[in-house]
Amino acid sequence: MPVQPRTPPGVLELLPPQQLAFQRMLDTVRRGFERFGFLPVETPVFELTEVLLTKSGGETEKQVYFVQSTGALKQGDTPELALRFDLTVPLARYVAQHEHQLVFPFRRYQIQRVYRGERAQKGRFREFYQCDIDVIGKDSLSLAYDAEVPAIIYGIFTELAIGKFTIRVNNRKLLRGLLETFGWPEPQHAAVLHELDRLGKMERAEVVTRIAALATDDATKQGVAKLVELLVDSPRDQRVFEVLRARDNATLREGVDELERVYHGGIALGIPAASFEIDLSIARGLDYYTGTVYETFLDEHPKLGSICSGGRYENLAGHYTKSKLPGVGISIGATRLFAQLLEMNLIGAVHAAVAQVLVLQVESALGPAYAELATELRAAGLNVEVYGGEDKLAKQFKYADRSKVPLAILLGSRERDAGIVKIKDLRTTTEHEVPRSEVVTQIRGLL
Amino acid sequence: MPVQPRTPPGVLELLPPQQLAFQRMLDTVRRGFERFGFLPVETPVFELTEVLLTKSGGETEKQVYFVQSTGALKQGDTPELALRFDLTVPLARYVAQHEHQLVFPFRRYQIQRVYRGERAQKGRFREFYQCDIDVIGKDSLSLAYDAEVPAIIYGIFTELAIGKFTIRVNNRKLLRGLLETFGWPEPQHAAVLHELDRLGKMERAEVVTRIAALATDDATKQGVAKLVELLVDSPRDQRVFEVLRARDNATLREGVDELERVYHGGIALGIPAASFEIDLSIARGLDYYTGTVYETFLDEHPKLGSICSGGRYENLAGHYTKSKLPGVGISIGATRLFAQLLEMNLIGAVHAAVAQVLVLQVESALGPAYAELATELRAAGLNVEVYGGEDKLAKQFKYADRSKVPLAILLGSRERDAGIVKIKDLRTTTEHEVPRSEVVTQIRGLL
Repeated sequence: MPVQPRTPPGVLELLPPQQLAFQRMLDTVRRGFERFGFLPVETPVFELTEVLLTKSGGETEKQVYFVQSTGALKQGDTPELALRFDLTVPLARYVAQHEHQLVFPFRRYQIQRVYRGERAQKGRFREFYQCDIDVIGKDSLSLAYDAEVPAIIYGIFTELAIGKFTIRVNNRKLLRGLLETFGWPEPQHAAVLHELDRLGKMERAEVVTRIAALATDDATKQGVAKLVELLVDSPRDQRVFEVLRARDNATLREGVDELERVYHGGIALGIPAASFEIDLSIARGLDYYTGTVYETFLDEHPKLGSICSGGRYENLAGHYTKSKLPGVGISIGATRLFAQLLEMNLIGAVHAAVAQVLVLQVESALGPAYAELATELRAAGLNVEVYGGEDKLAKQFKYADRSKVPLAILLGSRERDAGIVKIKDLRTTTEHEVPRSEVVTQIRGLL
Repeated sequence: MPVQPRTPPGVLELLPPQQLAFQRMLDTVRRGFERFGFLPVETPVFELTEVLLTKSGGETEKQVYFVQSTGALKQGDTPELALRFDLTVPLARYVAQHEHQLVFPFRRYQIQRVYRGERAQKGRFREFYQCDIDVIGKDSLSLAYDAEVPAIIYGIFTELAIGKFTIRVNNRKLLRGLLETFGWPEPQHAAVLHELDRLGKMERAEVVTRIAALATDDATKQGVAKLVELLVDSPRDQRVFEVLRARDNATLREGVDELERVYHGGIALGIPAASFEIDLSIARGLDYYTGTVYETFLDEHPKLGSICSGGRYENLAGHYTKSKLPGVGISIGATRLFAQLLEMNLIGAVHAAVAQVLVLQVESALGPAYAELATELRAAGLNVEVYGGEDKLAKQFKYADRSKVPLAILLGSRERDAGIVKIKDLRTTTEHEVPRSEVVTQIRGLL
């Protein structure tokens, strides 16, 4: 009885035309990262459990996949190994472990899959690609990198050509300073920011109610609607700095200064103002972020939520080293993004073979001539397939059609004796007879 | 107390210069596969245990890593998920699952990591890359693909430039036929082939003794030395076919015919005879292979053993489908190969940054000019880094030196006013003053 072949739930396995499209997406991301001089890093899929889960009992741990080999199955203790659930913890471990061999600021990109034991539901993946860049400084890190990060993302999403998008930037110091001016004491900031992060995902009025419920005095409670109005309805370009400078406190001023430098820095690096907004309502849920924060939205598909998020953090690897390692980074959740783009037909399966040319078997005795021709074309940099079987031409053309190769080459003894080859453009069904010696040039012209 | 940052044993984690070299290797492999028109496939890192382990109790299962999320830890049953231990079982599952959406012959490549719970020892990896290609037919598959596989490998190893190598080819039908002529009954063939696979790893005399011990009659036992001599000492090019045709039986004849076609096919596809040997002593341990078999050796480092092996199999996915799916494929164990090449200094760390140009911060007021220049260079396809901090030039040059970027750009107000930029070639320490408008061309010339 055969076993039913199937994948586990929560993974995205693609057929070749979609896989080609996905690979092009990842290649574009990688090229975008390299364009700014970032270095590649890959880490093992599993880490020692003790190293991965330095903060025990968190939400994340509940989703961790543990790994154990057959021999260890019966022991019952927490397994020694666990799959990474993001690329940030492995980066922290990597930088702390190799600190003395790295050049700082350390600029790395990492494109790998991560694993989360999510409850199975649509749009939730248990295995998905993350594409991360981070710049890690030693002791300090220039704000110039906070401006570079959105410029990198702008380049990549522009090249991906998946529609108009907006990178929204904010600063958590600025938010904390604002909260102070609205009467919120420092210990409550984290809770309020956590609620503010719901803006855009939940009705504004509901967010106001939830925040008001946290207030311990009436004046603060009264001010919540005004606070949220300021965050959501302020101008989304440099005019906002004037609004903010009208208020005053040290943290706010520091946040505004930073945001202003990041905004102008991003514009100087070529991000058009239409794709780069100051959005005071972006809070990011994680307390990990301490300054600049980013989110990215497709203008015509706001429901997707942020497709690329990140920010500045004070110290990357406090669990692993006493060195202070501030950083700034951003992450593209490529699997989720690709799945959504596919579903909305914003990205298409690649309806083309990897092969650009298919050499058909017109006469089996000419096998060596086909091999020689294919070798010549490959040496010229073309991707070439030779039809393997000795099937009738009709069957060969059917294969060519199904595999979406653009050009087929027909070379029989008539053509060989005349010193020509016949190129059939399968996209237009036109045929071209060209001299054997010009075949590379002619094919390049047709592609 | 910080946790000591460290990777689990049995993984290969690289510093950026080595990672760059490894990435180039994988890119070369991928380009080599695509040159022949193969399609990319990726499968999830874990499979359902029931699907992955269709043959229970084998050697492989002892090395399988099981995966379970925190919630499932206490149950004690065999976990539902397991990490793939090769790319062949996932391919079989993939082809069976998607059979009706694939075009046959299905030509796929897959470059992913696989996992084995190996005992920790030098050179044994628990996580390693495999780079596989396979051509899968439906019901039948032309022998032309058996000739194509070594041609692909020849192209890749040539481009990798890791020294002279030899692809050795043999045929298991031929071996079985030969065994018959030496008196071995069919049921013993698998055991003898298993011993023959030790040739090259063990002294010839010892292999002879081990095989002789299997013989049940004296004539067969006496013939073992002669058999091994024939396998090891026969000519390694087409002259061997004459030797083999002197013996006779149906299986042998079929094997010789196949091997002859594969050999001449490979030569026709451009493999020089010096890199392509018929080696009758190649047996491959796995009974899975039924015809052509391949191994690949670095001529100057035979101790490494085969760095790329594979062969023809009769039926890929018998556990998952009733369709008959014959195939031929080969696999490069990239992690092990890379680790060995590194150790022997046959491949070097890449002593160059990803960035080709580093724009230095000569005057902080000129930040926007640096951003504009970098954006212009990136638009021209160059990988460009802008130094982020406002450090002294000496510190910036130290960074440039350590990060191995070839060119630095100096642009102060003097240069700006004169409409020039200064390019410093850090490899030669020569400086070039060039007009601002010619900077792209000049940089291209220097690189």
